[in-house]
Amino acid sequence: MKIYKKAILPLGFSASGVSAGIKKSGKLDLALFYSSLMAKASCKFTANTMQAAPLKICKQYLKSNKDFQAIIINSGNANCFTGEAGLSDARKTTNFLAKHLGLKNKSVLVASTGIIGRRLPFFKIKAAIPGLVKQLSLKGIDQAKSAILTTDKLVKEISVKLMFGKKPVTICGIAKGAGMIAPNMATMLGFILTDAHIAQKALDRALGVAVGHSFNCITVDGCMSTNDSVMILANSAAGNHLIERGKGLDLFMQALNLVCLELAKMVIQDAEGATKFIQIKVTAAENENEAKKVALAIANSSLFKTAMYGENPNFGRIVASIGSSGVKIKERDLKIKVSSLKFRDIKVNVSINRGRSAVTVYTSDLSPEYIKINAEYN
Amino acid sequence: MKIYKKAILPLGFSASGVSAGIKKSGKLDLALFYSSLMAKASCKFTANTMQAAPLKICKQYLKSNKDFQAIIINSGNANCFTGEAGLSDARKTTNFLAKHLGLKNKSVLVASTGIIGRRLPFFKIKAAIPGLVKQLSLKGIDQAKSAILTTDKLVKEISVKLMFGKKPVTICGIAKGAGMIAPNMATMLGFILTDAHIAQKALDRALGVAVGHSFNCITVDGCMSTNDSVMILANSAAGNHLIERGKGLDLFMQALNLVCLELAKMVIQDAEGATKFIQIKVTAAENENEAKKVALAIANSSLFKTAMYGENPNFGRIVASIGSSGVKIKERDLKIKVSSLKFRDIKVNVSINRGRSAVTVYTSDLSPEYIKINAEYN
Repeated sequence: MKIYKKAILPLGFSASGVSAGIKKSGKLDLALFYSSLMAKASCKFTANTMQAAPLKICKQYLKSNKDFQAIIINSGNANCFTGEAGLSDARKTTNFLAKHLGLKNKSVLVASTGIIGRRLPFFKIKAAIPGLVKQLSLKGIDQAKSAILTTDKLVKEISVKLMFGKKPVTICGIAKGAGMIAPNMATMLGFILTDAHIAQKALDRALGVAVGHSFNCITVDGCMSTNDSVMILANSAAGNHLIERGKGLDLFMQALNLVCLELAKMVIQDAEGATKFIQIKVTAAENENEAKKVALAIANSSLFKTAMYGENPNFGRIVASIGSSGVKIKERDLKIKVSSLKFRDIKVNVSINRGRSAVTVYTSDLSPEYIKINAEYN
Repeated sequence: MKIYKKAILPLGFSASGVSAGIKKSGKLDLALFYSSLMAKASCKFTANTMQAAPLKICKQYLKSNKDFQAIIINSGNANCFTGEAGLSDARKTTNFLAKHLGLKNKSVLVASTGIIGRRLPFFKIKAAIPGLVKQLSLKGIDQAKSAILTTDKLVKEISVKLMFGKKPVTICGIAKGAGMIAPNMATMLGFILTDAHIAQKALDRALGVAVGHSFNCITVDGCMSTNDSVMILANSAAGNHLIERGKGLDLFMQALNLVCLELAKMVIQDAEGATKFIQIKVTAAENENEAKKVALAIANSSLFKTAMYGENPNFGRIVASIGSSGVKIKERDLKIKVSSLKFRDIKVNVSINRGRSAVTVYTSDLSPEYIKINAEYN
């Protein structure tokens, strides 16, 4: 398995990104991923009950259809809390793009990120779509990966190449997200493109597992977004034997886990205002669920996060946050180890003497810069 | 019912506060409330499973005994996560004080607030107790109310006087708390002293209700403390007819609710780094529990709080936080009204069209000052 720290489009895929004028800044804000072959899709969406229009539309499409050829994404506007008009805007976006690509309706997925509660300017998207389609290319990935960003400072991208029999398969991941990051999931969009030939059930399972151990194990501010989506398209262009179960699926899952975890970590590296990258590992838990509860209680504690920012060894706050998780740990069973606070990378190890399960969660510190960014963002 | 914005000790009570040298600053850090008559006690403690030693000791005492005459409180050290040694320190504190006051063991309650995970310097407390007892007086309340503070900038105090038949009854409340404030409850200590003659069951019920609508309806940072305690002593000195049920209990509860709610609001007024006092009212909920869930989801959202700090009308964040509460509200049923952000006092009204219950929660904004305070506190 070879790992590349950049997005490399798998066979059959192209991409593009343009400025449609949704962002006031004039920066790139409309992205397209396209597969020339029909691809199987699998998606995971936020657990927030107030879901944005594009998520609702994608869910509708996915009910009747698992074959897709394109994903269109806008940044600068979340198309959330926009009522019937918002649903219509999302639907018109997919339909207009499908027409321009010569695809049938409902074979386009859609995602949005940005401010909540403002009507999506569909007329701007409509005007930009012809150019977006025209610019589709292998190199277009560079524009696409920028066009999905909002407060992000870094582009999040990774690719993995591995052999299935004699056929090379590529898995390429791109993500955005820097704040409003919490399970499940984050103001986080993740797009994974692969030329693997894989069965629908195997794809669904692989994505579920990978998201559970990556995007659902990160938190910046405990704020759960309305727009979180992770989407994978698998277009079979690699021509490998069908991945269904056994060793083949294990290998695919291993690679997909790596892609998702690396993207998730990049989100935390880029967390709004972050000066620390913090890994919290909870071991000796009764089960994974319990370990995650404890780890996230620490990771979401503002007091823990400010202590990390201040390089302040106030570990009592770790104790307090663990106690607030509701997991009944005896004081004498709790062991806490924290690496030096002087470095950017900090490791917190918590052992709770209740069993054999472990989970690792990633988070950032809480700095005045986070507040500045979010006090002003609109 | 007359309300006084200061602590007025009820009949039979005296108080004192000294510097025992627990705080490095040399500020007052040891307080005593004393009743010359035996008093009925009732207490509410944090839901944090990692409870501090003084809470464990109080719970032990309360199992075998409901009659108390004193509460001793230290600030500067939470005596939490201190193991068997911490339990012994708390026990020695109550026993040594009981001896000095000529009381039997287990008739003294104890509370601590401050940093977690450091051994309580009992030798300093032991050395200070004789002076603390000597200085007991009506005026000593002024020292006592300062000695319980940590990062607080304001003293929190209120008194209510009301007639039961021809007998005047006083309820006096003192609290501390400015951060690590979240239901249930807060790094919050509340002490309520009354000369009312009231049955134990009625006292327990009244305190439970009052805390539910006050200290459990405030949040600064969503961080649940290990040391939260609200304690009431009722010494019967007013000589009123026993308050047990009916109108008498209603009146007492009304007064106690007021005392607790005003103290809780003062905690939010004094929240670490706060520039806003925010009242979040959720109406038309199916039940109170659901209303509280929604209100606290908003109140604990870092993104909402930073928007308030920035006077940034990014109300999408209210929508997102409501959705993260897990309560299934239809988009079209959600009505949000926010008062002008230019003032210190902000009112957020949220109606969810699911029923007739309502709850009001109080919170503050999240400012760079909060981070500064907590990055440095140790």
